[in-house]
Amino acid sequence: MHKFAIGVLGASGYAGRELCELVARHPAARLAFATASDRQGTRARFGGTETTFVAVEDAKLGEAQLVFSALPHGASAQWVDAAHDAGAKVVDLSADLRPGNGGSAESAEGFALAMARAPYGLTEHARDIVRSAEIVANPGCYPTVTLLALLPLVVRGLVAPGATITVNAASGVTGAGFTPKRELMFAEVADDFRPYSMGNSHRHLAEMRAVLASLGCDVDLIFTPHLLPVARGILATITVPLAEPLADVLAPWREHYAGEPFIEVSAEIPSLKDVVHRNVVRITATMAEGVRTPTVIVVAAIDNLVKGAAGQALQNANLLLGLEETLGLPV
Amino acid sequence: MHKFAIGVLGASGYAGRELCELVARHPAARLAFATASDRQGTRARFGGTETTFVAVEDAKLGEAQLVFSALPHGASAQWVDAAHDAGAKVVDLSADLRPGNGGSAESAEGFALAMARAPYGLTEHARDIVRSAEIVANPGCYPTVTLLALLPLVVRGLVAPGATITVNAASGVTGAGFTPKRELMFAEVADDFRPYSMGNSHRHLAEMRAVLASLGCDVDLIFTPHLLPVARGILATITVPLAEPLADVLAPWREHYAGEPFIEVSAEIPSLKDVVHRNVVRITATMAEGVRTPTVIVVAAIDNLVKGAAGQALQNANLLLGLEETLGLPV
Amino acid sequence: MHKFAIGVLGASGYAGRELCELVARHPAARLAFATASDRQGTRARFGGTETTFVAVEDAKLGEAQLVFSALPHGASAQWVDAAHDAGAKVVDLSADLRPGNGGSAESAEGFALAMARAPYGLTEHARDIVRSAEIVANPGCYPTVTLLALLPLVVRGLVAPGATITVNAASGVTGAGFTPKRELMFAEVADDFRPYSMGNSHRHLAEMRAVLASLGCDVDLIFTPHLLPVARGILATITVPLAEPLADVLAPWREHYAGEPFIEVSAEIPSLKDVVHRNVVRITATMAEGVRTPTVIVVAAIDNLVKGAAGQALQNANLLLGLEETLGLPV
Amino acid sequence: MHKFAIGVLGASGYAGRELCELVARHPAARLAFATASDRQGTRARFGGTETTFVAVEDAKLGEAQLVFSALPHGASAQWVDAAHDAGAKVVDLSADLRPGNGGSAESAEGFALAMARAPYGLTEHARDIVRSAEIVANPGCYPTVTLLALLPLVVRGLVAPGATITVNAASGVTGAGFTPKRELMFAEVADDFRPYSMGNSHRHLAEMRAVLASLGCDVDLIFTPHLLPVARGILATITVPLAEPLADVLAPWREHYAGEPFIEVSAEIPSLKDVVHRNVVRITATMAEGVRTPTVIVVAAIDNLVKGAAGQALQNANLLLGLEETLGLPV
Repeated sequence: MHKFAIGVLGASGYAGRELCELVARHPAARLAFATASDRQGTRARFGGTETTFVAVEDAKLGEAQLVFSALPHGASAQWVDAAHDAGAKVVDLSADLRPGNGGSAESAEGFALAMARAPYGLTEHARDIVRSAEIVANPGCYPTVTLLALLPLVVRGLVAPGATITVNAASGVTGAGFTPKRELMFAEVADDFRPYSMGNSHRHLAEMRAVLASLGCDVDLIFTPHLLPVARGILATITVPLAEPLADVLAPWREHYAGEPFIEVSAEIPSLKDVVHRNVVRITATMAEGVRTPTVIVVAAIDNLVKGAAGQALQNANLLLGLEETLGLPV
Repeated sequence: MHKFAIGVLGASGYAGRELCELVARHPAARLAFATASDRQGTRARFGGTETTFVAVEDAKLGEAQLVFSALPHGASAQWVDAAHDAGAKVVDLSADLRPGNGGSAESAEGFALAMARAPYGLTEHARDIVRSAEIVANPGCYPTVTLLALLPLVVRGLVAPGATITVNAASGVTGAGFTPKRELMFAEVADDFRPYSMGNSHRHLAEMRAVLASLGCDVDLIFTPHLLPVARGILATITVPLAEPLADVLAPWREHYAGEPFIEVSAEIPSLKDVVHRNVVRITATMAEGVRTPTVIVVAAIDNLVKGAAGQALQNANLLLGLEETLGLPV
Repeated sequence: MHKFAIGVLGASGYAGRELCELVARHPAARLAFATASDRQGTRARFGGTETTFVAVEDAKLGEAQLVFSALPHGASAQWVDAAHDAGAKVVDLSADLRPGNGGSAESAEGFALAMARAPYGLTEHARDIVRSAEIVANPGCYPTVTLLALLPLVVRGLVAPGATITVNAASGVTGAGFTPKRELMFAEVADDFRPYSMGNSHRHLAEMRAVLASLGCDVDLIFTPHLLPVARGILATITVPLAEPLADVLAPWREHYAGEPFIEVSAEIPSLKDVVHRNVVRITATMAEGVRTPTVIVVAAIDNLVKGAAGQALQNANLLLGLEETLGLPV
Repeated sequence: MHKFAIGVLGASGYAGRELCELVARHPAARLAFATASDRQGTRARFGGTETTFVAVEDAKLGEAQLVFSALPHGASAQWVDAAHDAGAKVVDLSADLRPGNGGSAESAEGFALAMARAPYGLTEHARDIVRSAEIVANPGCYPTVTLLALLPLVVRGLVAPGATITVNAASGVTGAGFTPKRELMFAEVADDFRPYSMGNSHRHLAEMRAVLASLGCDVDLIFTPHLLPVARGILATITVPLAEPLADVLAPWREHYAGEPFIEVSAEIPSLKDVVHRNVVRITATMAEGVRTPTVIVVAAIDNLVKGAAGQALQNANLLLGLEETLGLPV
């Protein structure tokens, strides 16, 4: 099979390493280069093959048909442009080009502007736009799990207008990156659990609000992330006030995602174990008993490094390259 | 110092062992007996002293000034009565006598009836009633953390009438007991996280609703517990719609709990590490930004085996015995 | 590709589930049946396909070209015979047919007798015998890692005659099986570490001694296993007194295992992370400095459920079926 | 009770924080100052009391009756001298003054020289010398557990002359310090296990050899430490060839440590759970079956931060101050 040349910018973090691993094992791709400015010249094995990290400045952008950028927020946009100018298609895993970030407002207009520059690659929601794009803004991990859980309710107009949706999410520590910090050391995280970015201060909120606004959904979000003593996985527990009770509670998800290869809707409660190392979202929903406002509780789980980062990025890359969407993706 | 004779019924579970340990180290108490029907005759060390477990039928109830029952729900009430008939004061850690359980409805009337039989020992809320009681129903772990977090808002009438309060709580596995089950084995729990009792089906809800009803609080609760891959600790993240925004967000808790030895109100976000092995609740609160309904997010953490079980039970026992409330309790 | 029909006896334990998963994803195999007497009639998903567990008595042994038995020790041998009588080749993961177990002594003669009935499938050591066998006794997890670490020294006669080899090994809890026991519950294992079967009382010793005796190796073994707070993986630290110092310490392993697809010899110290979910052994060795008896320290790591159980079993099955040895095995 | 003023140098690491906590809760001590150069001016709570960290240069050494130094190896000795010159007794937790380190050789003579400057505070071995000292070199964590396990055999001359003793030890990550490093991050350590300092290259070896040499013990040591995915605790599994088999295997330890408040000798196998947060060593021993050289396997466990660091330091400090040796120490 022909192998596309793929470059990875920012390959030494958790998402970057996951990308390199997926590319190296992909049946129609090969790792053309991997940059890691702080490890320049060191070697790493991905999928059984050795690679030598180069500095981002030394990456031969022109030799890649597609480039992933897993560079830090703020540092990525310029390299996305450089790779694109060099002739590559690009999937940007940073927040730089996502709606609600950078210059774009958290509004329907802001969303349209951001999409015009780089479609927001929530693949199941934007498959056709992604397919014909040159640059894709890959969603954040929390927005991926939250938006995929909410979309079936939102597009069907089932959410109570003006309601407050409460999102409590918990993530493994790889979501916090690979830069050594005291609060991420083993003895600090083990046996512990805590929220952070309380009071709606997490930067991923803008992205979620912008997407909901683009769909004309009139709701408020309260989003509280938590840090779990696990390496991988995100689970979100979402409470949604509805206009009407749902007779068949899973029906909106089953209909909306019929035939989707990476979305598993089930009456079983998902757990991190069901999704780690897989490019899937697992979703369940239950009506809350004993409350006057009809309310559905939706639970969704993903691997933050796969469906929440590198896996979804590769899913988008497959579309950009005209390949089968599921190729090389772990289910 | 004079040492009160204390008996523990159901001493081989996690809460029972914690009780024995606390009693053995208490400056004014000694462990008179400890029952464990399935380990009858085996020995265990608590606080450096050896004890031989006896069958519950063989416990010399009459020799104890106070008896703790950590027997399973349903099996406890009869032994509470037997101990009381034998002359002991009793703290019951099971749900049998708690409001909302057994015969009592989740209403203000049901609460009053349950309290008449055995005061509900949420110590900071019911200190004076406990002090003059003979039998105390010790609160469950989830209700302890949830109610202590909510009380300052509820008694001040700050909650929006008719609102839905969303409680997402996560507990360590000792909360699920010491009976061997596949889903509690190490390899099943490690690296995982999942909700359970979704849709408002957890049996602790009745207890929480009954207490809120007794205070005339017109709200609905949505309570979703989760299982954490840690041994100990509960953290609850609670979203409360308010009638008015709070100018000084921590003021209700600071005022309500002024001088309380076991309640720590802080602008710092609590984590399990702050509370394990201690008989404290740590609470913080933040107003949610960017939402139309004024909403406060309250986070509270306890050790499920200490403040959520054995510690609070001993706090109540100290009151029943006329001792200093804080005696022998780890802070 | 033609798909061989494969049956799994004892499919609900950790090794059995791993076998079903490997078979379901194998390019030249399909899962014909899976037995689980205590879960008869329940369904499970392996590799994306649903299977309904049957009782072992109801397994259609005659429909499988090859049967794996992951039944408990003592209960397996009879079903191995039944499957073989029904026309299937068999890989037995229990200890029943292994040398040193059952009737066979821990001697060269006992080894020969056991091998005559069912070759001991330490694949890299017995590839040719396995290839022409009908029934294979799959090695235990501790013997796999220990013997693969020692073989290069033993077959070259490098071990000091009469010496004592010290094996300290540590295993994840899946090695202790899936039967619920208090000592395997999360809150008991987490944050803990302890040896077991101290004083050379572990049942795997017989198997190791029999293999070493079959090679004419005159040594004593001291084997102390430990329980790690992890789900998967075994690491063994082995101290071997030598007749002479090794000039090139890794040379015996590099030579002995040249070209082996599943053995990684490296100057880097192996860790569990390097081997979990892979069918490999990683080995390093270092001479001990500052001691008078020349002594090499060998460290080897495997995934106890893959190379230590289901993976090696499939490696043997590939040989029995005339397939490429590496087919369907994760590296 | 009179409270001695105690200072802690290097109070922000794991051992330093443990020291501050112990001092703050000690019935006859108070925390006079705590230095943390990188956190100067920040506040911390120890034992319910707030302290403000100062730079080491600003510590009022002269106001303390006793100073603990938990400064890094190499940086400690000068401050030990400064504190002593200012009139304080000193317990140094660094390796700077320990035998086998700095200028002293790993020999009986080197040991004597080191002891002359600062007695090696393995308390149970050196109680009388410590009592009359001004400065004590507090043992390392690995030497503490290893030497306390070996001493009863060594002083009775039970070890086979010229034999090789194999020490395999595994430690929780707090033993590696609080400086942020990638290999100590949660996602790197969780689910993993690996040896380090293979081949007798660990710096604690010198200290162990020096003590054994001082007792005229003619043995070689092979010491291989491992990193456990736990926060606290060390367990050592030690194989000792003997001159003769032991008839009563635990007798040497039971006799040698009769009446010792912090040493627990038991036929039960110790585990980390038995010792964490306690100032104890738990020891068991078993003769190895089926080997020609009589060999005893000794297993010992400690909390690396308590008996392996801050607890033993306080035990020594109690002696230096003329207090009851057990005062303020958790059992």
